[in-house]
Amino acid sequence: MSDSLLPRADDVLAAAARIAPHASVTPVLRSRTLDALAGARLAFKAEHLQRGGAFKFRGACNAVWSLDADHASAGVVTHSSGNHGAALALAARTRGIPCHVVVPEGAVAAKLANIARHGATLWRCPATIADREATCAKVQADTGATLVHPYTNPAVMAGQGTAALELLHSEGPFDVLVVPVGGGGLASGTALALQHASPGTRLVLAEPAGADDTARSLAAGKRQEAFTPDTICDGLRTLIGAPNFALLQSAGAEVIVVDDAATVAAMRLLWDVLKQVVEPSSAIVLAAVLAQPARFAGLRVGLVLSGGNVDLPALRWGAS
Amino acid sequence: MSDSLLPRADDVLAAAARIAPHASVTPVLRSRTLDALAGARLAFKAEHLQRGGAFKFRGACNAVWSLDADHASAGVVTHSSGNHGAALALAARTRGIPCHVVVPEGAVAAKLANIARHGATLWRCPATIADREATCAKVQADTGATLVHPYTNPAVMAGQGTAALELLHSEGPFDVLVVPVGGGGLASGTALALQHASPGTRLVLAEPAGADDTARSLAAGKRQEAFTPDTICDGLRTLIGAPNFALLQSAGAEVIVVDDAATVAAMRLLWDVLKQVVEPSSAIVLAAVLAQPARFAGLRVGLVLSGGNVDLPALRWGAS
Repeated sequence: MSDSLLPRADDVLAAAARIAPHASVTPVLRSRTLDALAGARLAFKAEHLQRGGAFKFRGACNAVWSLDADHASAGVVTHSSGNHGAALALAARTRGIPCHVVVPEGAVAAKLANIARHGATLWRCPATIADREATCAKVQADTGATLVHPYTNPAVMAGQGTAALELLHSEGPFDVLVVPVGGGGLASGTALALQHASPGTRLVLAEPAGADDTARSLAAGKRQEAFTPDTICDGLRTLIGAPNFALLQSAGAEVIVVDDAATVAAMRLLWDVLKQVVEPSSAIVLAAVLAQPARFAGLRVGLVLSGGNVDLPALRWGAS
Repeated sequence: MSDSLLPRADDVLAAAARIAPHASVTPVLRSRTLDALAGARLAFKAEHLQRGGAFKFRGACNAVWSLDADHASAGVVTHSSGNHGAALALAARTRGIPCHVVVPEGAVAAKLANIARHGATLWRCPATIADREATCAKVQADTGATLVHPYTNPAVMAGQGTAALELLHSEGPFDVLVVPVGGGGLASGTALALQHASPGTRLVLAEPAGADDTARSLAAGKRQEAFTPDTICDGLRTLIGAPNFALLQSAGAEVIVVDDAATVAAMRLLWDVLKQVVEPSSAIVLAAVLAQPARFAGLRVGLVLSGGNVDLPALRWGAS
């Protein structure tokens, strides 16, 4: 698959087979307390327990193992605010090939540590998309590495869809799936998985109010490129990709826009009740359901907890 | 079973059948990162995801459903620093009977909230064991409720053993199981489960240095009753019960004594790497393994994460 093609539903199945030797089948968690709060039956796919700490390993792994031997030997390169970088580093390591990661200034320290731990070469650059892409292009030119874009790469999209596929197979049927949307890799992969395995299930995207370009783009029927993200959801500060938007538009995806305060409240619930350390970009899916209860009342709702790479607050423990 | 009898290995099997309609089969979590750190293959039984937030539901549920109809109708009573109280309240609710819980001053707020949420009547008293027992006796006399002691009740012990039984059945074999020890309900139940299902597996108990009576008792060959607990592990500030000690002694259980600093470091690892919100009394099992790596090198180690009822620190999230 080249970057110019859209992946198809059966690419998700192929991805599932390709990554099976490497990726974890993550658990699905439920809570009676959260069900009562939401007035719905919630099933959380725990992708924060995926290798690398996020669903991103699925797409990266599919991309790395889709390369032919010649391309693979020169390695891979990407730019990423964190989780995709760590995922690609880990995926490259499963194949024993080099990995270069361009990271923007200001990235979350826990995420950078994750990338470095998996043996990738880090290249720092300013935080704009243009700077990241230029640095990436230079590394590509210098090393011959293949660019694996965090969300527009078709193998990445197909790989991300395997999380929903597992959820549908192990716990389905569902009336709705809810996933976060940033660049749209997970969202578009999930749309493909639904198309294949459960076409009657609605797809709801949770998007931060401070980075709501997907909501605006779907409303306008056209990808909106004016974008200055302002949200604590550091994994979602990304303009929706063009192929991702095309797939989501044709899939009839809905969007719920969530403000950061609601996301923090939902994150606290997930820590407190579900006992899971998830990042804000994950908690937004629960925030979306709690923000619009009428939309989910009585339904079977699958939610993807996308990642858990947060900088923990200082933990202070007295003899309480 | 009366309180004067020791439970037997097959009581754990009977308990598993009795609680199956009510208790969750909790997931088992693994982490390559923690395995590398420990130099062993670790499997964490996630009892903090059990109903009520701790393994205690298993024992309480077994005790409640072991009562005949006449005794059941008058309800149950206990004294508990928290997790057992919540568990008994929840277990009583599964049978639709009254529950009274005597709680000591200074108990963790998250745990009291848990108890109240499950519909029990709370009776506050000073924190000494003598005061708790006196208050309990008064409630018993006034209501006719059956006392369900947090760890010496044989049905409770047998019920707690079902966590290890599940772990052995789903992920065994193991060379060692590691569980925390306070009053000894989980520890003695685990000894029974091993006796039934895996007699060759060693049992290691993790005990806080500030409440190390079990270590001293096993070393002396006699239960040591001088005891002034001083540890952050609020679930383990309890003198080992007499029947619990008898069972552990005959099972040849070993103890690793852990200081609070090591427990806090292990708790941070469990939050950070395993992404699980566990309480100090849970984290002590990982601390024990990391404190004595030579004892576990290369082994298959099962660890019970006993509970997750902590008062979360204030979470502050900036746009990091």
